[in-house]
Amino acid sequence: FIIFVSVTEASRCSITGIPLVRNISELPQDSYGRPGLSHITVAGAALHGMKEIEVWLQTFAPGSHTPIHRHSCEEVFVVLKGSGTAYLASDSVHRYPGKPQELHIFSNSTFRIPVNDAHQIWNTNEHEDLQLLVVISRPPAKIFIYEDWFMPHTAARLKYPYYWDEECLLEESIKDEL
Amino acid sequence: FIIFVSVTEASRCSITGIPLVRNISELPQDSYGRPGLSHITVAGAALHGMKEIEVWLQTFAPGSHTPIHRHSCEEVFVVLKGSGTAYLASDSVHRYPGKPQELHIFSNSTFRIPVNDAHQIWNTNEHEDLQLLVVISRPPAKIFIYEDWFMPHTAARLKYPYYWDEECLLEESIKDEL
Ligand SMILES: [Zn+2]
Ligand SMILES: [Zn+2]
Repeated sequence: FIIFVSVTEASRCSITGIPLVRNISELPQDSYGRPGLSHITVAGAALHGMKEIEVWLQTFAPGSHTPIHRHSCEEVFVVLKGSGTAYLASDSVHRYPGKPQELHIFSNSTFRIPVNDAHQIWNTNEHEDLQLLVVISRPPAKIFIYEDWFMPHTAARLKYPYYWDEECLLEESIKDEL
Repeated sequence: FIIFVSVTEASRCSITGIPLVRNISELPQDSYGRPGLSHITVAGAALHGMKEIEVWLQTFAPGSHTPIHRHSCEEVFVVLKGSGTAYLASDSVHRYPGKPQELHIFSNSTFRIPVNDAHQIWNTNEHEDLQLLVVISRPPAKIFIYEDWFMPHTAARLKYPYYWDEECLLEESIKDEL
């Protein structure tokens, strides 16, 4: 049984044995504890050995959203399905993000997040899932999370490294210890 | 007339005035002299001030293809429509790429190019366009182009910097000189 489990884990996490061309609809998806989210790592640091970019496919059920957060890596979104709202606080003059701009995002639109600007993506369309292709630079992301738009920048909670597929890294560490 | 032209150019190339959310179907597309290609820079260094990633939407008519080339930046593809073949020479033992692997690529599949491996994407489906979302790291790309799979690595022709939207950079240089 132990052998069987480790073989399964290897095919989930290890970069050896993952075919070069993969069917996205057969890739593992998970909510990672966020209600309404389906996240698929299309190309990732932990899973596929990416060093400079990660690509994710994320689907948000109506009403679901990301946390309010900021990061110094670049981020580009392509909306594949549905519509929603991107909230963006571009004013960095204050001690806190402040009331954000509301940007309508829609199928076949693209937008990028200016580096270090606090932002939040929200599926505000109650009738349809919002599906996004997300690209970030320099994995793993170093993310600062805000409780609300008026929390001081200095109080935002750091999550680093931000790996979706953390279990794969943990496994690597365990292997290193053996 | 001169003022009108520069206003048009500014909205095509300058990062000021480009809205944060853009409709991809309204973005400029061009073949850049490659028969059968439609290229759209979704997020780019020259056009949008990207420093760490670029995102392109490329459509290949049946029979059309990229040159055989290699680069040290990371590259990830997501196939949005159609099917085709990715040729990949992963053997770097020889002085030349050699006969490549043929990988079938299809709608909703993803693949990445191992850094520095020579590769070529070909729409080998004669009935349908092949549409790809392409992500590269560290723009501008430094690309080495091969005439065929048996050309020595050292003879591959360097194209650097590889900007699709070169006209925008030229315009910048002209501005700098003024
Ligand atoms: Zn973000
Ligand atoms: Zn390439």
